[in-house]
Amino acid sequence: MRVSSKDNPRFKQVRSLQQRKYREKYGQFLLEGERAVAVSAANGTAAEIWQAESYRGEAAVAPAARYIVPDEMFAQLAETEHAQGILAVVRRADLPAFPAEPNGNFLVLAGVQDPGNAGTLLRLAAAVGCSGVIATKGTVDLFNAKTVRSSMGALLTIPVLTNQEPAEWLAKAQQYGLPVLATALQNSVPYTTMPGTTRGLWVFGNEGGGLSEEWLAGASARYCIPMAAGTDSLNVAIAAAVFLFHNRFLTEGAHGD
Amino acid sequence: MRVSSKDNPRFKQVRSLQQRKYREKYGQFLLEGERAVAVSAANGTAAEIWQAESYRGEAAVAPAARYIVPDEMFAQLAETEHAQGILAVVRRADLPAFPAEPNGNFLVLAGVQDPGNAGTLLRLAAAVGCSGVIATKGTVDLFNAKTVRSSMGALLTIPVLTNQEPAEWLAKAQQYGLPVLATALQNSVPYTTMPGTTRGLWVFGNEGGGLSEEWLAGASARYCIPMAAGTDSLNVAIAAAVFLFHNRFLTEGAHGD
Repeated sequence: MRVSSKDNPRFKQVRSLQQRKYREKYGQFLLEGERAVAVSAANGTAAEIWQAESYRGEAAVAPAARYIVPDEMFAQLAETEHAQGILAVVRRADLPAFPAEPNGNFLVLAGVQDPGNAGTLLRLAAAVGCSGVIATKGTVDLFNAKTVRSSMGALLTIPVLTNQEPAEWLAKAQQYGLPVLATALQNSVPYTTMPGTTRGLWVFGNEGGGLSEEWLAGASARYCIPMAAGTDSLNVAIAAAVFLFHNRFLTEGAHGD
Repeated sequence: MRVSSKDNPRFKQVRSLQQRKYREKYGQFLLEGERAVAVSAANGTAAEIWQAESYRGEAAVAPAARYIVPDEMFAQLAETEHAQGILAVVRRADLPAFPAEPNGNFLVLAGVQDPGNAGTLLRLAAAVGCSGVIATKGTVDLFNAKTVRSSMGALLTIPVLTNQEPAEWLAKAQQYGLPVLATALQNSVPYTTMPGTTRGLWVFGNEGGGLSEEWLAGASARYCIPMAAGTDSLNVAIAAAVFLFHNRFLTEGAHGD
């Protein structure tokens, strides 16, 4: 369907998805770029596809609706330079459902602020085999354009929950017997001393301030990553990778041995 | 010293450091932001400090020269939003010298393109205790503003070489008996099967294309990171963290046991 008026109600709604409040109101978000759109069309999560008039790439498998708009209108929909003239509207209801009774390892983003870090963490969680990602209130929106882009499609495959309360998850962890594993520079032991676990909440905090007192007090164990002399910090996604892959090594051993 | 003319030769030269060719010509680069400037003033690598007139932060320990410029001129020097009204000019000659006879573990960036990834890799290399970082021709400049910023000061502490030729380093690796450890999705074995090593070149390639044939053919060993079903990629800095921290675990064991 061709849409050429900026007053078109559907165009206006799709454009509003650049703002978190409308993403949350409508339960939809934008997935930009050819590769990502192809993945979401293939796995059935693309509800609509919006294309710039000049788009000449291969048409993805047809979803329910396809809209063609003049290039300058497309530019108003896309937020990244990598949108390549095509984007999909995805309904959160069509994403993998978060398990009602959590079991397995879960990555908890408790205050992560940088959209790129959040996306890299989602991609990591999917690659290392986590069962889901939980974002607390005060964490960057997992569905903003930069996070979606740096997650490299992980949002289409791993279940996520957003706007969660720490207290609620500390209670659920007790209820379901999931250890709460926290990262902390102080009052912690090296991560290399941890036993492996096939289930738990792995909690990572704000890039500058780390974890809140609430998480630190509620944690079953607190671990640090010993670093070389003269250095004192790691990117949060790097730290999460070190923890989660070491845990995988401990629980699964050296594959291919 | 107050500088109020955009025609001031020193102002013009400092502004030119936003471009790689002038960074290379003068052997200098810019370090933006209060915390980074304080670190470089403290360790003696800040040759000059440039401040916006409105800057009200704590004055860092005085380096050789300090320049105060009107805010709109400062804005022309700084590239990031986080410059906070203060930056340092650093001479590469004042940075830690790369060892003449390489020994230890070295991180090789062989075609990494994203400035943020390069900075995160530098920070990782410093934290995990690498002896240096080697960037080949075709790799993003390690001294651009975004990389300097995401390296979080690592450039002031870890020796680096830029514009290096792969063939030269494959020859040096042989000469000094350093194994060349490559990451590859194909024709590789899981990283969890590797023996630990206290010396070697750890080579990471382009975000999209991975390592060149030259590196793959010259590698002593090729390793992959097994991933969960349905996923096939990790951010390059995440992959490097998994390799290097696992190697550290293998060589140093569980500290604090």
